[in-house]
Amino acid sequence: MIAVTPNIALDRVLERIEVLPDQERPIGDALDHILSEEVHSPIQIPSFDNSAVDGYAVRASDIGESQGLTVVGDVRAGDLCTCEVAQGTAVRVMTGAAIPTGADAVIPYERTRETSELEDVPESAPMTTRIPGRVFIEDEVAAGVNIRRAGEDVAEGSRLFRPGHALGPSEIAVLAAIGRATVRVIPKPKVAVVATGDELVDPGAELPPGKVFNSNGYAIAALVARVGGDLSFCGIARDSAGELIARLEQVAEQSDLVVTTGGASRGVYDIVSKIGSSEWLVEPLAVRMRPGKQLVIGWLPFSARRPVPFIGLPGSPVAAMVGFELFVRPAIMRMRGMTDVEPAVVSAIAAEEFPNTMGVISFLRVRITVRAGQYYVSSGGAGRSHGLRSLLGATGLAEIPADGGIGEGEPVRVRLTGWSGLPVQSAPPADERRRLFTD
Amino acid sequence: MIAVTPNIALDRVLERIEVLPDQERPIGDALDHILSEEVHSPIQIPSFDNSAVDGYAVRASDIGESQGLTVVGDVRAGDLCTCEVAQGTAVRVMTGAAIPTGADAVIPYERTRETSELEDVPESAPMTTRIPGRVFIEDEVAAGVNIRRAGEDVAEGSRLFRPGHALGPSEIAVLAAIGRATVRVIPKPKVAVVATGDELVDPGAELPPGKVFNSNGYAIAALVARVGGDLSFCGIARDSAGELIARLEQVAEQSDLVVTTGGASRGVYDIVSKIGSSEWLVEPLAVRMRPGKQLVIGWLPFSARRPVPFIGLPGSPVAAMVGFELFVRPAIMRMRGMTDVEPAVVSAIAAEEFPNTMGVISFLRVRITVRAGQYYVSSGGAGRSHGLRSLLGATGLAEIPADGGIGEGEPVRVRLTGWSGLPVQSAPPADERRRLFTD
Repeated sequence: MIAVTPNIALDRVLERIEVLPDQERPIGDALDHILSEEVHSPIQIPSFDNSAVDGYAVRASDIGESQGLTVVGDVRAGDLCTCEVAQGTAVRVMTGAAIPTGADAVIPYERTRETSELEDVPESAPMTTRIPGRVFIEDEVAAGVNIRRAGEDVAEGSRLFRPGHALGPSEIAVLAAIGRATVRVIPKPKVAVVATGDELVDPGAELPPGKVFNSNGYAIAALVARVGGDLSFCGIARDSAGELIARLEQVAEQSDLVVTTGGASRGVYDIVSKIGSSEWLVEPLAVRMRPGKQLVIGWLPFSARRPVPFIGLPGSPVAAMVGFELFVRPAIMRMRGMTDVEPAVVSAIAAEEFPNTMGVISFLRVRITVRAGQYYVSSGGAGRSHGLRSLLGATGLAEIPADGGIGEGEPVRVRLTGWSGLPVQSAPPADERRRLFTD
Repeated sequence: MIAVTPNIALDRVLERIEVLPDQERPIGDALDHILSEEVHSPIQIPSFDNSAVDGYAVRASDIGESQGLTVVGDVRAGDLCTCEVAQGTAVRVMTGAAIPTGADAVIPYERTRETSELEDVPESAPMTTRIPGRVFIEDEVAAGVNIRRAGEDVAEGSRLFRPGHALGPSEIAVLAAIGRATVRVIPKPKVAVVATGDELVDPGAELPPGKVFNSNGYAIAALVARVGGDLSFCGIARDSAGELIARLEQVAEQSDLVVTTGGASRGVYDIVSKIGSSEWLVEPLAVRMRPGKQLVIGWLPFSARRPVPFIGLPGSPVAAMVGFELFVRPAIMRMRGMTDVEPAVVSAIAAEEFPNTMGVISFLRVRITVRAGQYYVSSGGAGRSHGLRSLLGATGLAEIPADGGIGEGEPVRVRLTGWSGLPVQSAPPADERRRLFTD
């Protein structure tokens, strides 16, 4: 088995990963996808001069007439505007309504006084009777006030997005506003998660002696969902080459990526690392890191459709999650069309000593706190354990270098993982985005 | 209409909002939900003493025997362990396998030398023939090495989570590991988004003169998805009380919250603010802020099921999104069972002047950047516009106080919104979580 650094292992993973073929999606289903087309606006926005407020469209030079202006019409948003504002007249306009010919400013209701209050007129009355006869405006206004000019926001034909642009709520709003019902994007990869091992039992079942519940399948499935993968399968395969291959064949048919946990080391029964040992397809690696030194990468050629990339993670729950973070997350991000697959990393201060006597880089589950703009990390007691408890409350992976570790108060680099608790809606940019580990 | 501060408006919204009734969900569908039960572990983890490595289970006092140890058995993960390690013997164990009686340490393969290499034995050979006869171990080891003791990670009966705990991938892993197939959580609220206005046209259609494409519906739907709401409807209702009420009746039946855009101001045709004007149910507010001063809050009693809370946002795209951020996001968070509904806020430096002559608090779309650990915000040119372009690239809302604005280089408080681009997977904690605006 080849022993490699984490960086080299990641390169070996990523050289098997390609951006998925793009597809046309309705904009209502395109949130958080990456654009694959260049988007130009087929219209100008606003598409016509319109009012920024509810009020009266006037000629600015008429303002101040003590006898007021005669109200000659009424335009709602969406109405075709047929009336005209001649000298000494005004037209009532709603926000978004087209500006009548002749008008060059709109005065908001609040700054006007009308001869009849709107509230005096029943809503059921015909529209014309609801127009007050005269309106009085005392403030002076400049021409152009409260008019949104056609094209002032977006010019017809202007380029709004290039391929690779990520679609958040703002981008969806703009696509809708220019009339796009669908858009070409990179889809979310379908990811199968197969936990291997004769010792695994599904949660909810009885636990016979010597067995453990399958937590890896659910943990990796949750991480897949968080990075925008679309789970195509989540289940168990037993430690027999026949069953494993049958299962992988089945899930590869419906997946863009297959992830296994367990069976990745050199034990006699570590079946995942051996299924392709006589072929070029599956390659077990020993990664110079803890936890998660075992990694298997390859292709599943069983699928008639096309070879499906395959990543085998270790069976220990914490090692599987660390392996996901380092190797599977960037693979899924690349499949989704994200060009920057590096993790968000911050520089923090070690709130306690983090020794490392393993001779290789260690990734420690840590809690991140902030005081006076400075990040601090601690293991919260549980972080020293390699068990499940070390996962709870941990929102980062700290890189503890091989050369003896990190002392209390020393700087430490931390990858933001968000494993514990809810995802955040937004964050200020990380200090940097890059691979956490150095060779 | 009542003019209120943003804080009071938010209080008026939240006093109508309750946590949804909890439900039992499979753990595979419980990610990013809030627990409503206290979780104790029904088992200890590990549930039995097991090996942390692939290697040989031995008596530590036997190590160093020059003639080696006789290998008497082989235990895989998941096997019942029937063999015993007597003096001078060893049992081969896989990671996770139960520790045989008599053994008190496990020596990893890498530190052993065997009389026959595993590779010499065909995989098809019966298990016993694949056990090498003798194993040589030269390093001294302490008793207990590489053994994970039963219960060392989680004690039977120990409390793991209280109600209110948020389920991330770590928590899902732990729930699976203790054998939970389902868990009681607060569901995600079903949210209907109704864009109102005769001027609205669905994207993809022809755009007649005077009309605009419905972008609000799609923008608000995207924001609902981002905050963990479950979209139950997204469409248009016309500016007629009859059509609007029929639409709201229909969507309220299948929703926990109804959000409208448009028709919220005092214009004659602003139908949303008037549908309940003769009743106590719908209350139009004027909020002392820009953009988004119009807000309508209330109940939809049309539903036979129960009153459904209702929030009417303004019709201007930017104002609708700002209104969502301030009033709808916290409502959805509270429905989901999140106790802290305050937004994440950071303190930044204004990279340009942000004047405010409006007499009320202004929320400006800004880009957030970081240099040397300090956040800076700028409008990127587009931020000064109130149009759609101001949304692109904006990841925060800066609070520009009413008293004249903020000068270049001065501190400014910024709410993290993540409107533009992809959501982040994780983030260091914000400086604080609290309402951005002050009265």
